[in-house]
Amino acid sequence: MRIITVSREFGSGGRELGKRMADVLGVAYYDKEIIAKIAERVKMDEGYIERVLDRSYTAQYPYTFRRSFAMMPPIYHRQPNLFAEQAKIIRELAEKEDCVIVGRAADVLLWEKKPFNIFVYADMTAKLERCRERASEQEQLTDREMVQMAKRIDKDRASNYALIADHAWGDKRAYHLCVNTAGVKIPELVPLVAAYAQMWFDNRDQG
Amino acid sequence: MRIITVSREFGSGGRELGKRMADVLGVAYYDKEIIAKIAERVKMDEGYIERVLDRSYTAQYPYTFRRSFAMMPPIYHRQPNLFAEQAKIIRELAEKEDCVIVGRAADVLLWEKKPFNIFVYADMTAKLERCRERASEQEQLTDREMVQMAKRIDKDRASNYALIADHAWGDKRAYHLCVNTAGVKIPELVPLVAAYAQMWFDNRDQG
Repeated sequence: MRIITVSREFGSGGRELGKRMADVLGVAYYDKEIIAKIAERVKMDEGYIERVLDRSYTAQYPYTFRRSFAMMPPIYHRQPNLFAEQAKIIRELAEKEDCVIVGRAADVLLWEKKPFNIFVYADMTAKLERCRERASEQEQLTDREMVQMAKRIDKDRASNYALIADHAWGDKRAYHLCVNTAGVKIPELVPLVAAYAQMWFDNRDQG
Repeated sequence: MRIITVSREFGSGGRELGKRMADVLGVAYYDKEIIAKIAERVKMDEGYIERVLDRSYTAQYPYTFRRSFAMMPPIYHRQPNLFAEQAKIIRELAEKEDCVIVGRAADVLLWEKKPFNIFVYADMTAKLERCRERASEQEQLTDREMVQMAKRIDKDRASNYALIADHAWGDKRAYHLCVNTAGVKIPELVPLVAAYAQMWFDNRDQG
């Protein structure tokens, strides 16, 4: 099985890279699709699931609950463990077919399948610029607000990652290729990174 | 001017990658050549210069001398500053023609020329294996000794780098591409990384 995982800083263009690589390689692409699958399975709202999974772990529980953890009845046990559900779904998807998975610590969850792991990053100026190019509600944010948001999102990604990984999110040793997208057009990047991944898989499968 | 700098961990195959990229791109390649040029200029032995530049900074002075720095006459002033000489030569080379420069903190020395900066790394197992494939005096070393040597060399590279850089050696933010060579054959890597560098330069020169 040839699984490509793409971890990325907010605004680095990693999602676009992953999507386009999946197109070029003719394989499945998973990102938000995973949320939809969880929602279907646990019968909960997608928006809620996304908020829980994409923010840091403890956001799952109300503040007062966290404070007096030991004294409260374990209500949270009645909630499905969304992280566990997500892990299960990602493993099922990777069992089925070649694919590109963006985010969600798929590189760690799937390490036994020897995925090709990419980390996509850039300096803050380049990331801001890339965000501005996208048409979305982020348009109304000031630069300062956008920087704060980007930092918070990446911090959450790092904490979620830390729940299951024994190395830091973004530590280059965990990836096969780290791509700085400052000054780069994602569509031009795609065939090169796709060719790189295929070369890597060919070596893996020969060895 | 199109300058490619290759920083690399010992045993990662970075030097081979740099050399082959220079061949493929038809540009000059500089590594040990720089030592020879310094030797010529300062009229000192190449082996001595290499020992000074490739080990950490203070290795330049005998131990007792370092200990009583303030009380000794400044004999060391009579020695040419080899780091400064090296920096000067690297800048002169980069002025002359497109080239690939391996090591020597060329990415920092030449930042004004906007070089394309690559960092090449791998896990220790892969690096050991690569070292074993090379025929050299290292063949007589045990694995343990080789690991120690690799670590010491990289530590020296990091300290030399710290003399002039405001970020850590190997910090991915300082590079445009970080390549993990574990499970990769360098010759297969070359055309992809060369194409990547050219794409990056094209974007740089358009923008």
